[in-house]
Amino acid sequence: MQPIVQQTNSEATMSPKISTKQDTKTALLETGIEIMLEKGYSNTGIQEVLSKIGVPKGSFYHYFDSKEDFALQIINYFDGFHTATLLRTLRNPDATPLERLRIYCRNGIEKVSSAQCRRGCLIGNLSQEMADQSEVLREALSLVMQKWRDLFAACIEEGQKAGEIRSDCSAHDLAEIYLSGWEGAIMRAKITKRIDPMNIFMEVTLEHLLKG
Amino acid sequence: MQPIVQQTNSEATMSPKISTKQDTKTALLETGIEIMLEKGYSNTGIQEVLSKIGVPKGSFYHYFDSKEDFALQIINYFDGFHTATLLRTLRNPDATPLERLRIYCRNGIEKVSSAQCRRGCLIGNLSQEMADQSEVLREALSLVMQKWRDLFAACIEEGQKAGEIRSDCSAHDLAEIYLSGWEGAIMRAKITKRIDPMNIFMEVTLEHLLKG
Repeated sequence: MQPIVQQTNSEATMSPKISTKQDTKTALLETGIEIMLEKGYSNTGIQEVLSKIGVPKGSFYHYFDSKEDFALQIINYFDGFHTATLLRTLRNPDATPLERLRIYCRNGIEKVSSAQCRRGCLIGNLSQEMADQSEVLREALSLVMQKWRDLFAACIEEGQKAGEIRSDCSAHDLAEIYLSGWEGAIMRAKITKRIDPMNIFMEVTLEHLLKG
Repeated sequence: MQPIVQQTNSEATMSPKISTKQDTKTALLETGIEIMLEKGYSNTGIQEVLSKIGVPKGSFYHYFDSKEDFALQIINYFDGFHTATLLRTLRNPDATPLERLRIYCRNGIEKVSSAQCRRGCLIGNLSQEMADQSEVLREALSLVMQKWRDLFAACIEEGQKAGEIRSDCSAHDLAEIYLSGWEGAIMRAKITKRIDPMNIFMEVTLEHLLKG
């Protein structure tokens, strides 16, 4: 959901020298994320990932059973970082719940903007592409999104209790709308190659639609 | 945006006998839509389309310059039917603007539901998949969505004038949110394989968020 990949270990991704097994796996996952974000699952070739970091094919199958398993581990790896960001942002005690949602949006907008409105959200992209193609990936993606939605719901519920967010709808339903609206806005930014749809989402949703 | 393809010429699609040139082209387009909706652009093979309706490869290149050109013509063909549906629904004089938006949602929900939450919206799917892969397709998809958004905006503006829809945001911005939220909700239905996200979108957006 954070629209582009967290640069958590860019040294490992960029470096031609990989010294440990863990480094190799991390490099494969991070390079896979980079390429899959840009091209999607179907257009990502294992060979392209391997060539980019100079790892032999045997290494890949040491860590991953298949391309599908690679994508599954990519989803979990990406989710780990993104959930940490979500927790940090949505439980920030120095901001009100509505301000936290705004900080989250603003960070996402900055990232999509700095990527020239390319790539988008890895989880959203894979969901759109793979929902009908792989039951294994669909289940993993669905669980990740459900977890994110529940984190939004907890923040929204806090805002409702404080009277900052409207209470005529459940926090669950507002979080569902928030998540799907945000994913839709990222897709609109990608297709228009303009950041406006994401700015409009942030302004209209937070300044008007959700206000208590 | 209407989540699944209009069954406009299913006879031509299903029939093994294609009698005219126009029938052949239509059959190629409609079969292409069916397969692309399910599998996306990258996973759609021209040979699969041809085999399904028993047309030789030469015929394909008589009508289409390339796979990209095929997708472009599919987008325009699909848009033709869908814009007609949108116009009929969003300018229906027997319903209020908010009711028209509800009818549009309800029809979409029925279609996604009857497809077991598979497939989704052709334009949304291709946007997510191809925005960074083909500038030709990106421009076409962006124009189609812009037209749909403007049709929503006209309906919303009518609702604002009648006091049925809130007026503290522009019709343009509310339409942008409506379009991206709807596309996001279709994606959420696909990934959860449940219709709930679309129902929540309809109920919360029309009964609460947009209300004047």
